[in-house]
Amino acid sequence: MSKWRLEVFSDGVFAIAITLLVLEIRVPELTAPTAAALAMKLVAQWPAYLAYVTSFLLIGIIWVNHHALSTRTMRVDRPIVIVNLFVLMAVSFLPFPTAVIARYPQLPPSILLYGVTLTILVVFANVLWQLVLRGDHLDRNAATPRAVRQTSLRLALGIVAYAIATPVGFFVPKLGIALFLLIVIFYYVPGGLDMDLEKAPKHPEDVTN
Amino acid sequence: MSKWRLEVFSDGVFAIAITLLVLEIRVPELTAPTAAALAMKLVAQWPAYLAYVTSFLLIGIIWVNHHALSTRTMRVDRPIVIVNLFVLMAVSFLPFPTAVIARYPQLPPSILLYGVTLTILVVFANVLWQLVLRGDHLDRNAATPRAVRQTSLRLALGIVAYAIATPVGFFVPKLGIALFLLIVIFYYVPGGLDMDLEKAPKHPEDVTN
Amino acid sequence: MSKWRLEVFSDGVFAIAITLLVLEIRVPELTAPTAAALAMKLVAQWPAYLAYVTSFLLIGIIWVNHHALSTRTMRVDRPIVIVNLFVLMAVSFLPFPTAVIARYPQLPPSILLYGVTLTILVVFANVLWQLVLRGDHLDRNAATPRAVRQTSLRLALGIVAYAIATPVGFFVPKLGIALFLLIVIFYYVPGGLDMDLEKAPKHPEDVTN
Amino acid sequence: MSKWRLEVFSDGVFAIAITLLVLEIRVPELTAPTAAALAMKLVAQWPAYLAYVTSFLLIGIIWVNHHALSTRTMRVDRPIVIVNLFVLMAVSFLPFPTAVIARYPQLPPSILLYGVTLTILVVFANVLWQLVLRGDHLDRNAATPRAVRQTSLRLALGIVAYAIATPVGFFVPKLGIALFLLIVIFYYVPGGLDMDLEKAPKHPEDVTN
Repeated sequence: MSKWRLEVFSDGVFAIAITLLVLEIRVPELTAPTAAALAMKLVAQWPAYLAYVTSFLLIGIIWVNHHALSTRTMRVDRPIVIVNLFVLMAVSFLPFPTAVIARYPQLPPSILLYGVTLTILVVFANVLWQLVLRGDHLDRNAATPRAVRQTSLRLALGIVAYAIATPVGFFVPKLGIALFLLIVIFYYVPGGLDMDLEKAPKHPEDVTN
Repeated sequence: MSKWRLEVFSDGVFAIAITLLVLEIRVPELTAPTAAALAMKLVAQWPAYLAYVTSFLLIGIIWVNHHALSTRTMRVDRPIVIVNLFVLMAVSFLPFPTAVIARYPQLPPSILLYGVTLTILVVFANVLWQLVLRGDHLDRNAATPRAVRQTSLRLALGIVAYAIATPVGFFVPKLGIALFLLIVIFYYVPGGLDMDLEKAPKHPEDVTN
Repeated sequence: MSKWRLEVFSDGVFAIAITLLVLEIRVPELTAPTAAALAMKLVAQWPAYLAYVTSFLLIGIIWVNHHALSTRTMRVDRPIVIVNLFVLMAVSFLPFPTAVIARYPQLPPSILLYGVTLTILVVFANVLWQLVLRGDHLDRNAATPRAVRQTSLRLALGIVAYAIATPVGFFVPKLGIALFLLIVIFYYVPGGLDMDLEKAPKHPEDVTN
Repeated sequence: MSKWRLEVFSDGVFAIAITLLVLEIRVPELTAPTAAALAMKLVAQWPAYLAYVTSFLLIGIIWVNHHALSTRTMRVDRPIVIVNLFVLMAVSFLPFPTAVIARYPQLPPSILLYGVTLTILVVFANVLWQLVLRGDHLDRNAATPRAVRQTSLRLALGIVAYAIATPVGFFVPKLGIALFLLIVIFYYVPGGLDMDLEKAPKHPEDVTN
């Protein structure tokens, strides 16, 4: 499996999943199409917009990190391809829990579904990272030991974070939603491999570009 | 972050968002499926077609300009990646306001939603441009000072244009729709970096191609 | 505009439009979910499958021809980018007429909508071809004069074919559908640039691959 | 037709089809939106999740194998491009039978539709493989005779497997679904060209990467 094609396929899935999110925001059905009714309905579905932004930012940062990782990966083997497929399966599934939470934001099962999906996603991401790390696929010249340790920590923390946010959200849905958004924002704080972004090996195309 | 992968991901999102627009045009539901009823319903939803064309042309020209910019950008850093993600978030969101305006073209809130989305989009586009400009990421050999000044002006004008068209459209919906279309057409007039298209540095693949 | 990015974007739109077609085939709604009822409903919507196959083959062959053309194009300029965008707009729109014809195959307006869309598409394709031809963008070493003449003829014939099939189909819907399928099959017969496929200049990546 | 563009287009279709699968999982409609009702409805549609996972894994492994094949293919000609298009048509169609089986898992026609689609898909895949094999397009240095024989066998077995699972499933739907999942899992066992993954010729981009 060439790394190049794995990247194109993964980027395709990320780009599609992130764009499909909008399909879950529904055009309001109005019995009497007045301006006031439309405005009210549009405002009333604010949880749908919040869910859209949260899931968009989440897939976006996963894409950024996936890139930071694959740039430093020297070669991929079958287990990496398969686990990567599982990561993509969880990412592709995300529009569904997003739609459920957008529709029924106040109901605990929505939070549970969203939280479990993210927990599974972050577990797969950890497995992928460990495979790259242990199989010696990582280009050590492109990743400082500190960045590697930090990435391991940040990824592992993700499991803890979602494992806490999910049950909390089951009992206090609004707090759960806030925590889901907070966790995503946390990952936007630079750190780990990501921090070394500038030091990443250049893609051959960029050199001459 | 390699520029190459940022382009592939962005192009993916542009291509998907532009293609998803059609899903918002609905097949008419007919109680009695006669030719006359179908013809009437198909004609009656002309605002949906107009909204489709407007949004398609808009995403199309954003793609052209995004390309003109990225061709002349020498390297990307984390802030550029993040702001680019926000531009993509606004672009991906566009099918929703397009669907709302297609469904309720005569209602002010539809115009407001569409206009606000575009205003936000153009603000993000301005921030992205300023980041590239100030961070000295621009290849000055590939962009004349005049083209740079014109691009700054054209992008800033976009904010003004949508900031005027949106409230106007709120009070006179039909005029608002006409203005939205006009603004898009304006951006198809060559100018700025775009004008220098022929002078753009060639992609390495094109040289040998 | 680099040819490379135009290809990636166009391929993206082709790939998405061709894959979205399936979303227009609807899962039957059953009041009483029995095997017989489901089987009957699935069989009854055979026009939807036929429309799917026709539109899929159509976008597929447009993609093949688009590729045959772009391989032999040495450089692209702004008019080509814009007209290419119009070709993509017609292609992206195709899922809608396909859905209408799938739903109301016996009604003349469905045939008219489908036929008019294809006529517009093929007109744009002709304009694109003429732009490439007249602007001297074509790599003459990669296209024999005979192949060029044949391509011009085949593309022009497309306009004639759809201009005939559309009104015919308006009066005899079933004949119209048959003609639409026949026209697509005709384009699968090798000819024009397409015929020279083997002689096309190799993509730089293929040489070492 | 350059191999490169065939790969980009095919990867695009695979990525989109695999991501569209999620759109077929529907947000439950609740008459009274209570936590218990939502939880029950979400659990009740477990066949939809199972169908999602089965079809996702199926498209995923087709993509892996498509890649293993195209890496070792030296050049493509028109028949290969056309048959590849037919493979993609079957893959793109998959979200529809998946949606039907997810909705009516207990009804024989659902199993029949799913099984027939897969049978057709695997027949096309066999034709594609034979075209590559007989037309001497395969890079024999990159594929041991044993791997070639095994791939022929595994692909032919697919026809047999689906030709058995489909009628079995028609009479015992639950057994059919289990068999469909089993067949997919079987293809995840390394073998054939796939097994030689490490020995595959490197993509030029990977060498310097």
